[in-house]
Amino acid sequence: MGNVPMRVCIVGCGAVGSLFAAHLGSLEDVEVFAFDLSSEHVAAINRSGLRITGKADILARVTASDDPSTIPPCDFGIVATKSYVTKSAMEAVARCFGPNASVCSVQNGVGNEEIIANYVERVMRGTTFPAGHVVSPGVVEMDTTGDTWIGPFEGHAAPMDEVRRLADALNRAGMPTIALEDARGAQWTKLIFNAATNPVGALTGLSHGRLCEIKEVRALVSGLVAEGVAVAEALGITLDSDPEDLIDHAALVAYEHRASMLQDVQARRPTEIDALNAGVAVFGVQTGVPTPLNNAIVALIKGVEQSFAPDVATTEGGPS
Amino acid sequence: MGNVPMRVCIVGCGAVGSLFAAHLGSLEDVEVFAFDLSSEHVAAINRSGLRITGKADILARVTASDDPSTIPPCDFGIVATKSYVTKSAMEAVARCFGPNASVCSVQNGVGNEEIIANYVERVMRGTTFPAGHVVSPGVVEMDTTGDTWIGPFEGHAAPMDEVRRLADALNRAGMPTIALEDARGAQWTKLIFNAATNPVGALTGLSHGRLCEIKEVRALVSGLVAEGVAVAEALGITLDSDPEDLIDHAALVAYEHRASMLQDVQARRPTEIDALNAGVAVFGVQTGVPTPLNNAIVALIKGVEQSFAPDVATTEGGPS
Repeated sequence: MGNVPMRVCIVGCGAVGSLFAAHLGSLEDVEVFAFDLSSEHVAAINRSGLRITGKADILARVTASDDPSTIPPCDFGIVATKSYVTKSAMEAVARCFGPNASVCSVQNGVGNEEIIANYVERVMRGTTFPAGHVVSPGVVEMDTTGDTWIGPFEGHAAPMDEVRRLADALNRAGMPTIALEDARGAQWTKLIFNAATNPVGALTGLSHGRLCEIKEVRALVSGLVAEGVAVAEALGITLDSDPEDLIDHAALVAYEHRASMLQDVQARRPTEIDALNAGVAVFGVQTGVPTPLNNAIVALIKGVEQSFAPDVATTEGGPS
Repeated sequence: MGNVPMRVCIVGCGAVGSLFAAHLGSLEDVEVFAFDLSSEHVAAINRSGLRITGKADILARVTASDDPSTIPPCDFGIVATKSYVTKSAMEAVARCFGPNASVCSVQNGVGNEEIIANYVERVMRGTTFPAGHVVSPGVVEMDTTGDTWIGPFEGHAAPMDEVRRLADALNRAGMPTIALEDARGAQWTKLIFNAATNPVGALTGLSHGRLCEIKEVRALVSGLVAEGVAVAEALGITLDSDPEDLIDHAALVAYEHRASMLQDVQARRPTEIDALNAGVAVFGVQTGVPTPLNNAIVALIKGVEQSFAPDVATTEGGPS
């Protein structure tokens, strides 16, 4: 490798993508390209650099673009889009990755790596806890610090050496990252946490702390956790920690946190339900583990998403 | 009985109560008293009579009051309040009913008769389909016609003669009413219909017809129906008809209908969840029939109701 810089393409430079882009962009031996469709964000990053405020303070040199043909071949990709645009984003950026490039998902939920593997040979499974929000074009506030776990994606596995090389760069850049032979435990621990709490927040409008205080609601959360844990066990996955403990801990340290899916629903945006509860349900079917509560939650969130669509019958004047 | 008029007290003179009050008030041999807490509605009824528009056209003489001490002893009561105020309403009006008076619930859900039986000896179980909405004080539009079923409430049963006497008056007044020895089948058919569709509409924001069109949502509705049917069977209740057929039929004839619970949630009012899905769940526990989907729905609606309450932690400044 020597003096040749490592080239990383960040796919989707929203809040999480920007955290990865700015941290890596602060390293001398890494060159960061960011693919994003927000022309304002892209222009601001190219004009003034990518700035991180809040729990980190970084101003990094990043080359942003909404046109993948302007991005040179990269050694690594980090996919940080919403899960429901993984396919269209990978279609756009696949050309940026040669046969030896490794592409890592740091997205929510499950199912993203399978999609990425349709476009590149070497894939990494990743899970990340740091979070933030876009303050203005080119500026992202880091709200939460935390670890990132990455490992080869079974079937289309990136070599372990490459996993370690990316983890090393992230660690040097100030994002604590653990390279693992099997990253499924970390991913499913976060998946189960998210699938049990995110949609319940979205459906009730309650913050994380408040939904944990209502007996019936907390019991529903536990029911969702139990189904997720059963599916993980059937898949032979050892969870990193008990999701119930994480949920109780979050009620203490992030009482006011409003789930990202609640924010999505309030903004009438699509949600990540397909990568969360529907992901649990798909692997439930695969392993013969019933997931009735997750199915119910999927149905309700899909209903909410449909309610954002114009009512064709109303427009056309259906029966009253 | 002879020339002495039959005295009926309508407990709760909202849309449904007004339909009963006005129909009965149009009979020569029935004297109708209506207890309601809306002083505007009460004043308008006493000033100009109670008017029904829409699917009926009635102007009836009804004596309305928000003070039960002004209401003379009545032969019958018809309770038409929201289920969550049954207790406080009965506490207020119990004095209007002597030992021979029969009081009939025509409310949504189950559990109301049990509460009424704490205040009077003779109770009837009732289920009604007619519906409407208050247009202005003293004026109610009848939106839906349909049958009413009444019968003795087991344990604190009104005599069958009294059931028939009330049914006869309602039939003569133009409200088709069937007197039954066992009115549980009619009640549970409507209960299961309501519990399977009302909260799903409330949680998703979808009209009845639209929620029936979304495969996952319709499957959830069927799951809720199946639990209700299993509980009814365990109770030895024979349903009047298959709730699935009613649901499909309603999708055709009432595509745009927005469930009353959806209207409650949008107006940030309490819902009737305790008499609907929580009612199914209570009888499920009693009969040993599991009701996990109904429990999940109860939890979500209770969460929604809690989200209307001020966030104490926000006010007091909890962790962020």
